[in-house]
Amino acid sequence: MALEFLKIPDDDAVRVPAEPLRKQVASIFVAAGTPERYAQITADALTLASLRGVDTHGATNVVRYTESILEGTFKSPQEIEVISESDTTALLSCGWGLGHPAAHIGMEMAMDKAAEHGVGMSTIRDGHHIGMVAYYAMLALERDMIGIAMTNAGPAVRPALGRQAMLGTNPIAFAAPAGEENDFVLDMATSTVASGKIGLARQLGVPIPEGWAVGAEGEPITEPPGDRGEHWAQNPLGNGREQGAHKGYGLAMMVDILCGVLSGGGYSSFIGSGRNMSFAMAIDIAAFRPVDEFKEMMDEMIRALHDTPTEPGADRVLVAGDPEEEAMKDRTENGVPILQARYDEIVGIAQRVGAEVLI
Amino acid sequence: MALEFLKIPDDDAVRVPAEPLRKQVASIFVAAGTPERYAQITADALTLASLRGVDTHGATNVVRYTESILEGTFKSPQEIEVISESDTTALLSCGWGLGHPAAHIGMEMAMDKAAEHGVGMSTIRDGHHIGMVAYYAMLALERDMIGIAMTNAGPAVRPALGRQAMLGTNPIAFAAPAGEENDFVLDMATSTVASGKIGLARQLGVPIPEGWAVGAEGEPITEPPGDRGEHWAQNPLGNGREQGAHKGYGLAMMVDILCGVLSGGGYSSFIGSGRNMSFAMAIDIAAFRPVDEFKEMMDEMIRALHDTPTEPGADRVLVAGDPEEEAMKDRTENGVPILQARYDEIVGIAQRVGAEVLI
Repeated sequence: MALEFLKIPDDDAVRVPAEPLRKQVASIFVAAGTPERYAQITADALTLASLRGVDTHGATNVVRYTESILEGTFKSPQEIEVISESDTTALLSCGWGLGHPAAHIGMEMAMDKAAEHGVGMSTIRDGHHIGMVAYYAMLALERDMIGIAMTNAGPAVRPALGRQAMLGTNPIAFAAPAGEENDFVLDMATSTVASGKIGLARQLGVPIPEGWAVGAEGEPITEPPGDRGEHWAQNPLGNGREQGAHKGYGLAMMVDILCGVLSGGGYSSFIGSGRNMSFAMAIDIAAFRPVDEFKEMMDEMIRALHDTPTEPGADRVLVAGDPEEEAMKDRTENGVPILQARYDEIVGIAQRVGAEVLI
Repeated sequence: MALEFLKIPDDDAVRVPAEPLRKQVASIFVAAGTPERYAQITADALTLASLRGVDTHGATNVVRYTESILEGTFKSPQEIEVISESDTTALLSCGWGLGHPAAHIGMEMAMDKAAEHGVGMSTIRDGHHIGMVAYYAMLALERDMIGIAMTNAGPAVRPALGRQAMLGTNPIAFAAPAGEENDFVLDMATSTVASGKIGLARQLGVPIPEGWAVGAEGEPITEPPGDRGEHWAQNPLGNGREQGAHKGYGLAMMVDILCGVLSGGGYSSFIGSGRNMSFAMAIDIAAFRPVDEFKEMMDEMIRALHDTPTEPGADRVLVAGDPEEEAMKDRTENGVPILQARYDEIVGIAQRVGAEVLI
């Protein structure tokens, strides 16, 4: 199938066990001047993405994040600050440093407020890339809460009826705990695909499926040229008028409003490339109904969906979070596959900042 | 263009001014035994949908709702009950009556809680159709809040990789106030299109675009046969694996979780046809930042999107809520177009319940 290119080929990859990988990532950040706690949070988030098979947001990102710290693009040490706060809301500044620690703290504040009042919510401005948004939403699962996380990003996606990139891929994550079944964990860009997948196709020199992107004149393209921006743009989820492009576009704006406008940090085309404003929210299930009854009904719903007869050529109907759980099992047991070239880069950056090589 | 069939043809329609239409709808409900306040709420919601051009959820629905009351499918008078409540949350029962009044009260409670604590949220169980979900989200605009509303429904949509209807079209509405520009009002089914549009195509005998539905074996179809359910199913937004069907499907499950599982009322395939559980939420903008600054940034973002160069064949890039605002201007001035046959049905039901004919 056309999406095979997204898998890391095993014969070109090293398998690294998760725990040394996590420690390596944390030690690199610490050696680069990141406070211990922020380094640990970021290492946890990156390693979880690697374990769940979300390689575009995984541990290899330690390289570019650390480079950003060394270049001064990411402020270090950063000051994460609570700008305003109410019973259920918080507005934070990420202090223009690593995105992950501020988003994590924002989610923790949202959960603490939800535990006390039923619902809690944070927006985080002045930030950078927060990685896999599911990480923040999933923090709620341990506390028997529903978690929601979003982030905006610089322009990559055209609005419906438009031909120029004006919106980020603006992903949404939503996590709700199940009982015996896998927890429900949705993590979706509001574009047809996440940017990383198109980047990967370009790296490998393979064409992308039609429907993912348009050229400078709005024509469908399968081989995106060098720069995005003026030269080409991704499609919003739905990709054409008749198939609901205005819906993916509308969801991207919703994310921009909750992350960028509500925080005051700015919407996609305002913030430009390399910056990200975020949003985190928690709902205490027990405020509505007994948690075990909620989980029982989740299980029932998930089983009914798993049992749905399949479309031609499909093995089984999946539920959001299933593929990631499967990757998690494989990688916990066999290690995280990392392309040899990326592995070398991690070792290289460790040596550059003077961290011990642990992988 | 292929979607032209969705417009009501003016030569076959009567134009009815909004105010008498609203009064007519309310008077029919009252004559059928609905309490005055609930009748007024439902009439407001239906008339707003008609004014905004959302005809599938407009005033003509007074006919089927009243029939449901007379048949006893909708309990009347209904008892809308608060089952549990916290600082920021409420769980309501709609009492198996008209859906609109309970969803409206749920949204009012969410807004009152948001005014006091920053955020408020309700789930509503034991309910029926709540019409245009944007109506509830838009109630927040007058109070300078962000409004969110969702509802689930009986099975109409297949899960990604599946071929049988298991999810409702489960729509999401999100409203945020702008300053001088139109408010942002997103109202989207999580399927490729709302059910009503396919119903309309079938009524008119026109084929639907490819990508909207599949037949019993999962094959793409453009002429849906009689019954949905086992015989055919709608596609989730994204409609195929490569184009992100798992995202529309995931969003539909998110709606099911917030409306059905969190309330305990049940998810789509559990509740079956003709029942709807709902969710309403409000965020007080002032808890985060000054409202006028928020609106200024909304205006700026909306203008930037309006100014985006268009794709081939498009006139102008729109923002969610723009087409409805345009319909609203036309219809406020020239009346709501209602097909002659539907008009006769409204008059018929008025006479049947003994309400004065006002249109």
